[in-house]
Amino acid sequence: MHRVRVRVVEDALDANNTIARANRADFDRAGVTVVNLMSAPGAGKTSLLERTLGDLGDVRVGVLEGDVQGSLDADRIADAHVPVVQLNTAPGFGGECHLDANMVRSALPSLPLDDLDLLVVENVGNLVCPAEFRIGEDVRAMVASVAEGDDKPLKYPLMFRACELVVVNKIDLLPYVDFDLDRFHYHLDAVNPGVRRVLTSARTGEGLDEWREWLVQVAVRGRARV
Amino acid sequence: MHRVRVRVVEDALDANNTIARANRADFDRAGVTVVNLMSAPGAGKTSLLERTLGDLGDVRVGVLEGDVQGSLDADRIADAHVPVVQLNTAPGFGGECHLDANMVRSALPSLPLDDLDLLVVENVGNLVCPAEFRIGEDVRAMVASVAEGDDKPLKYPLMFRACELVVVNKIDLLPYVDFDLDRFHYHLDAVNPGVRRVLTSARTGEGLDEWREWLVQVAVRGRARV
Repeated sequence: MHRVRVRVVEDALDANNTIARANRADFDRAGVTVVNLMSAPGAGKTSLLERTLGDLGDVRVGVLEGDVQGSLDADRIADAHVPVVQLNTAPGFGGECHLDANMVRSALPSLPLDDLDLLVVENVGNLVCPAEFRIGEDVRAMVASVAEGDDKPLKYPLMFRACELVVVNKIDLLPYVDFDLDRFHYHLDAVNPGVRRVLTSARTGEGLDEWREWLVQVAVRGRARV
Repeated sequence: MHRVRVRVVEDALDANNTIARANRADFDRAGVTVVNLMSAPGAGKTSLLERTLGDLGDVRVGVLEGDVQGSLDADRIADAHVPVVQLNTAPGFGGECHLDANMVRSALPSLPLDDLDLLVVENVGNLVCPAEFRIGEDVRAMVASVAEGDDKPLKYPLMFRACELVVVNKIDLLPYVDFDLDRFHYHLDAVNPGVRRVLTSARTGEGLDEWREWLVQVAVRGRARV
């Protein structure tokens, strides 16, 4: 059973890459830079976006919300007056634990691509599979909450290795949790040496300027490419 | 592609259930009650086990540690002088985001089943797929950290619905996070009405007696059945 299963997964990944390239071509044509934002459940992706997307200067941003079901996060983003589309993996996609290129492709007609410079895709909360599926993004970023512990880069290396940026969130909790920041940096450098990292608290606002600036830079870099 | 993919997943799930029943028969024969313990990454499963498994009275307990890779958690459990076997999903299992019955079956020869009353299987940190795969367990329990937010039952309903016990962990952080306990109970009752819940802090020790008693009861109940 195992041998057959692995072959099927590989085929699916190849098809995924084909569709991811088609998505990427569509994004490029529309001049949209795409960030694939990943994390464990409850690390604070939505809160970070809520607090920063309304203030990106002249960068026109939209959000694609990936969830197994419901539209809680999309409703929060909409409250920040940012165009948002909800993509649920449960109805019709088997309750998948990640977004794939085909799911994102199915959402493209609902997205006002021509009116956007930047699209943030908030992936399903999961530290494993989202890192394995390209969706046509330019950049991958992840959010790690200090409440999750400083050993996570060693336990989920593919995720931490796949990203250009690691946002270390909820740093207001540092005095109350067993999280050694030096040890986290050490573990992170072991799997993704020197990767850029930003320390944030969506609650106190610390570090949000740096996160916002990173998003703007990504959009500007994308614009320069087009 | 989608149609084909769903069929494959269904076949895989059927095969999984067949193997899960075989595991269950082996556990029953050996008189071992099995708890499938699930959570998001960093919710505190290992800390809860570290703090309680050394003190379960005459219940002889062992642990099967599921991780994508590494043996960090198994090493911690071994330090508590509890027999532990590490099961990694990365080498040979495609880096799966969950344990399935076949993976657990591959670990059975390494487990001293005849010397155990209770086996706790610590699943891979993930709120989606672990709930979809039976492994031959008697009982399913999950750990939700208050740092993850009180909306998680609505976002990951299958996981919260699949469990007989929900451990609400890291309650020492309640003063510092936006987590409304009443709202959490309300959301949890919406997906799994009246499910038993225990509030714990592995850090302060609050609630650990109740968690320990639940484990002992599960083991005694299993013994009565055999």
